[in-house]
Amino acid sequence: MKEYLIKSGSEVDLSKWDPDDKRLCPEGKIEGLKSLLEINHDLEMLQELLYAENKHRVLIILQAMDTAGKDGTIRHVFDGVNPQGVRVASFKQPTAEELAHDYLWRVHKQTPGTGQITIFNRSHYEDVLVVRVHSLVPKEVWSRRYEHINNFERLLADEGTTILKFYLHIDADEQKERLQSRLDEPDKRWKFDPGDLKERALWPKYIKAYEDVLSKTSTPWAPWYIIPANRKWYRNLLVGKIIVETLKGLNMSYPEVSFDPAKITIE
Amino acid sequence: MKEYLIKSGSEVDLSKWDPDDKRLCPEGKIEGLKSLLEINHDLEMLQELLYAENKHRVLIILQAMDTAGKDGTIRHVFDGVNPQGVRVASFKQPTAEELAHDYLWRVHKQTPGTGQITIFNRSHYEDVLVVRVHSLVPKEVWSRRYEHINNFERLLADEGTTILKFYLHIDADEQKERLQSRLDEPDKRWKFDPGDLKERALWPKYIKAYEDVLSKTSTPWAPWYIIPANRKWYRNLLVGKIIVETLKGLNMSYPEVSFDPAKITIE
Repeated sequence: MKEYLIKSGSEVDLSKWDPDDKRLCPEGKIEGLKSLLEINHDLEMLQELLYAENKHRVLIILQAMDTAGKDGTIRHVFDGVNPQGVRVASFKQPTAEELAHDYLWRVHKQTPGTGQITIFNRSHYEDVLVVRVHSLVPKEVWSRRYEHINNFERLLADEGTTILKFYLHIDADEQKERLQSRLDEPDKRWKFDPGDLKERALWPKYIKAYEDVLSKTSTPWAPWYIIPANRKWYRNLLVGKIIVETLKGLNMSYPEVSFDPAKITIE
Repeated sequence: MKEYLIKSGSEVDLSKWDPDDKRLCPEGKIEGLKSLLEINHDLEMLQELLYAENKHRVLIILQAMDTAGKDGTIRHVFDGVNPQGVRVASFKQPTAEELAHDYLWRVHKQTPGTGQITIFNRSHYEDVLVVRVHSLVPKEVWSRRYEHINNFERLLADEGTTILKFYLHIDADEQKERLQSRLDEPDKRWKFDPGDLKERALWPKYIKAYEDVLSKTSTPWAPWYIIPANRKWYRNLLVGKIIVETLKGLNMSYPEVSFDPAKITIE
């Protein structure tokens, strides 16, 4: 999966990343969906082990343009995983109380405890994305945030959190199709917000802001992956694979018990 | 499902409730598992509708003796439901900060917002169960809590929360078998806590405490259901059915949009 990992310190130019890429599954969708079933199963087992061992914490961060599939990724990659073992934290417009604190305050509260997986649906990265694109704070304020963020994630990693960050990469044509289908299908219409079109008009500014995020905040302790996401099945497969491989790399095991089972009688 | 509902004000004698009952699915396990698949599917759709409509809140409370299957119920009933739409709050031994407040303080914080389903794995009922059985507070303190709890749940219901409470009913023989299998199977051994045997020795006291809970706190706005739970498949089926029927009864619909889709062009 190294193909999709951003090496620390490299400069990212998103125009060079193909959102239609499917090189790890050239056989196509049917094969991809089959592999995803295996990944769902592996993830279910690994989550149980993570919970039982109660030693590691896992933080998964999803960032993307509207319609790129943050919700769909969560739903399909974690299909079948015990809902008790996975928590999703969605970061929307900050509340008045949240705004009264630094921008990492509300984020820190939501980080996973031991034995837990937490998924951030959007995250502190919005504070250098939407905040930057809409000039909600001056440049001198947002531009020092990359370093805060790297330091914050370093703290989490040093204290036992495994961090994975995914940028779901679609292109503007794909977004157009997906927005149109929200308009066309009555049951999806509630998801359409005319305000999304204003954001869409800012596409080039968002791309620039994402390129800076990916260039400045992919670190050995909290790497970014760029996930080709025009094909939903490939997006799910790749995110699932990376999570499963990472969890396997933790070399977890069921905890030893401190009693001799043979000596216990249940009355 | 009225068979399993405790009518407000009735006296519950648990010895009269058969934990092996399967009267709504006399055909047995295979049929039951098939029906559960349909329920999983219905629940997945209803959760999406609940989220889209963003009007109702749903609180599901699970209480039971050790090994009765709170975790298993969550896992199997909510299999396939978007993890983003369901949050599980587990109430363990209170922290020092929690103990410094009234016993409903930590619970109130975890109640669902609009469009959300929250499952309580254990709950404020522990404050009239374990707290009573172990005499952690005097009788005069725990005995007035039933009224607090009814009033608290009334507040939630009045303000838009649908509340369902399930007592998963197993007998002592079934618990013995389940504890023994935790000892026998190496991958389950970590779930066994020798302290569970001390709790098991208090079985009659817990039954009495549960009978009081069920008799005093089943209200029209927050009813208790007694779920026969010796058979895991029947337990899951019944809990799933009651949740699905309740959600259907909310008569939800996708929200109307405030724009004319035909007049929108996506550039």
